[in-house]
Amino acid sequence: MPNHHSALQIDSNETSPELESHYCGPLLRIESHIIESRRRIETWFREQWRRTPAPFYSSVDLRNAGYKLGPVDTNLFPAGFNNLNHSFDPLVVHAIQSAVEHACPDARGMLIIPERHTRNQFYLESLATMAELFELAGFETRIGSLEPLGEPAHFKLPSGRTLTQHPIHREGRRLEVDGFSPCTIVLNNDLSGGREEILDDLEQTVVPPTALGWWRRSKFDHFSHYQSLAHELAELIDLDPWHLAPMILDCGQIDFMKREGETCLQEKVGEMLAAIQKKYDELEIKEKPFVVIKADAGTYGMGVMMAQSPEEVTGLNRKQRTRMAASKDGRNINRVLIQEGIYSFERLGSSGHVAEPVLYMIDRHVVGGFYRVHTKKGQSENLNSPGAEFVPLPFTQSCVTPAPDASPDSDQNRLYCYGVVARLALLAAAREQRDLVGDPSENPVAD
Amino acid sequence: MPNHHSALQIDSNETSPELESHYCGPLLRIESHIIESRRRIETWFREQWRRTPAPFYSSVDLRNAGYKLGPVDTNLFPAGFNNLNHSFDPLVVHAIQSAVEHACPDARGMLIIPERHTRNQFYLESLATMAELFELAGFETRIGSLEPLGEPAHFKLPSGRTLTQHPIHREGRRLEVDGFSPCTIVLNNDLSGGREEILDDLEQTVVPPTALGWWRRSKFDHFSHYQSLAHELAELIDLDPWHLAPMILDCGQIDFMKREGETCLQEKVGEMLAAIQKKYDELEIKEKPFVVIKADAGTYGMGVMMAQSPEEVTGLNRKQRTRMAASKDGRNINRVLIQEGIYSFERLGSSGHVAEPVLYMIDRHVVGGFYRVHTKKGQSENLNSPGAEFVPLPFTQSCVTPAPDASPDSDQNRLYCYGVVARLALLAAAREQRDLVGDPSENPVAD
Repeated sequence: MPNHHSALQIDSNETSPELESHYCGPLLRIESHIIESRRRIETWFREQWRRTPAPFYSSVDLRNAGYKLGPVDTNLFPAGFNNLNHSFDPLVVHAIQSAVEHACPDARGMLIIPERHTRNQFYLESLATMAELFELAGFETRIGSLEPLGEPAHFKLPSGRTLTQHPIHREGRRLEVDGFSPCTIVLNNDLSGGREEILDDLEQTVVPPTALGWWRRSKFDHFSHYQSLAHELAELIDLDPWHLAPMILDCGQIDFMKREGETCLQEKVGEMLAAIQKKYDELEIKEKPFVVIKADAGTYGMGVMMAQSPEEVTGLNRKQRTRMAASKDGRNINRVLIQEGIYSFERLGSSGHVAEPVLYMIDRHVVGGFYRVHTKKGQSENLNSPGAEFVPLPFTQSCVTPAPDASPDSDQNRLYCYGVVARLALLAAAREQRDLVGDPSENPVAD
Repeated sequence: MPNHHSALQIDSNETSPELESHYCGPLLRIESHIIESRRRIETWFREQWRRTPAPFYSSVDLRNAGYKLGPVDTNLFPAGFNNLNHSFDPLVVHAIQSAVEHACPDARGMLIIPERHTRNQFYLESLATMAELFELAGFETRIGSLEPLGEPAHFKLPSGRTLTQHPIHREGRRLEVDGFSPCTIVLNNDLSGGREEILDDLEQTVVPPTALGWWRRSKFDHFSHYQSLAHELAELIDLDPWHLAPMILDCGQIDFMKREGETCLQEKVGEMLAAIQKKYDELEIKEKPFVVIKADAGTYGMGVMMAQSPEEVTGLNRKQRTRMAASKDGRNINRVLIQEGIYSFERLGSSGHVAEPVLYMIDRHVVGGFYRVHTKKGQSENLNSPGAEFVPLPFTQSCVTPAPDASPDSDQNRLYCYGVVARLALLAAAREQRDLVGDPSENPVAD
């Protein structure tokens, strides 16, 4: 597929970014620990998945600062499937088959429910790829629409494909499009705007369950689970958990417009910056600490800000406050998460552009990923902000097989390490799912 | 890995054989039916696996005559893992993880029990690859030996790897090597010579169960199951089942040395040849029918003969009879299977050598395969006979994803079709497993 994300073309010989050289040493240590302990890690994951089944699918954004490698966002309604390397389609197909067998063993077809009112071509390309992958896995697949469409809407995509969104009808406790009423509804809508009534109380299986939408999820809960899992894994492989986990703080309710909670926010930001500085001093890291402040519930990088000093969160002008007060679908921010910022020190050799890995998982399996190569922003800025231009650079290797005989920072081993950290975030999401949906052994989502 | 099977080198640009052109038409029809019906086929397989879990692993030898595409051998203790394309290791790793989770969810390590007294370097390469793949999947893996070794035996392999076979000790109801006593024993010994006492009544999980060894399996049972499954699938996709299934006949007990059962054999061979001729006439196929007579229990192509007339099975000289009377491990042939012969009309363009596809499955997943390119024998001869020289040509694509928009006989679609037929044979083996081991729902082998 031609690349439509930006005019910038990536040299096709360039298959992966490089870490800035002064941070190769610390990363090598993290990677060595992971590669050497891979059996223990895999055994531990197997045990974890038995206790806490994985969500249906997900993508995880990672940041690699060399001395620290951690997740910054875990999306349970992933887009961007069009950015994956087609060579790994078979891996995706097997994983879809496993995931569906766990969620809805007698499924024959899938109805995908996408985001509302989006004409974003990248998103539509992702939907088209998703539908193709489900078809390749042997499921008849249609894409519905939550919009009040009178008739199917056709979109001609940059890839040359045509995507059709069908109007959805609810008949009793079932959804159907055009007489097609499959037993499985695949939700690709993160419900940032609240739950959708039409999805309530269906007799069809909805995967992932609507309770995993942002109307219920909390980033604080996610990263709290992540913290405790990172501690558990780090202990297993004898590594300081700080190398894998961004620190977090919570500040209760904030109303940016009314300037309520500002003092608390300022204090916590100061506290976090001091904690990071302490760790940096200990490890002789010369960077300037920064924090990320984001909506506790939401996506798309709206309502996200960076700060390198406590003053920055109090000196906000009206425009900045308005931006923080609004999240996707116009939800007001009530709770914010204060998170340790992780620098992205991976850069493409040719252009020096910052590259951020994004990993994709279906069920418990890592199925691929790509680098989000950012053509404009800097190392500490949020690469997922609105209008951000990026070029996807698909991983050329899977994240599944380590290469024990190769250098710990060979591409293959680095991607395996990314897969470990991404699965750690997935496991945190699995615990959220358990908390929100109930005990999986009573209501099995996976075997 | 360098190729050590033969001095013949395959042109590295040559990725797949071609079918002789006069049989492309009929194959195109078979392939079109399969590709067009892929959703129905996948749905049907899913339903079948739920009812009858797949064996732990297998390889299936196929023959492609253009007008007919069928399995000729289904091995439930496969070797040849070293012939697979490394690009698909991630697929193998995921499949191993699924298979082990089904068979022994809390497994941390694997002990592989290989064939006895084999110094065959190809087999040892396969074992080394198997162990590597289990390690990549995160399991500590050792290779045991049923031989009375005093100490570990080390083998330097042509690939440069060193393989170690460890002496096995039985402690109570557990096997161990060198203090390593994993919960899972992976059997890679087809037990042609009978069951092994040391494997009886273990508290460890043995996969596949010893009951799937040739001391219990019957080819007649396998191909009977295959026949009925091929009928079921063919009906589903509106195809004459003959295109997918070799006809079989049984002849009760035969003793070649004592010439007992010879008359029956002659009659059945005549009957089978007439049935094939009738079908050939109907479909205007100009080939000469042939039958394959093989031991009902056994492997390795010993005790296999071809016949194009009934007289050929009565005019056997002493040497031929001795050969038919002996199978692997010296077992006498008691029962023989009379099977419709399927020509191999796939040839490598450069050399004209006959190529026979071999597909590998782990659990219910096709994970890859290769062409056995035969450098000496003809189209109707058995490519798996002792001393047969072949060059493995790994599949360059997976057998997992059809390409609905490409020609039905594109490489990708052909391999998908091979995957369908191979899974049909796997399903026949699953039914054997159910018959031999019991109801999987009482004793779950898969979820």
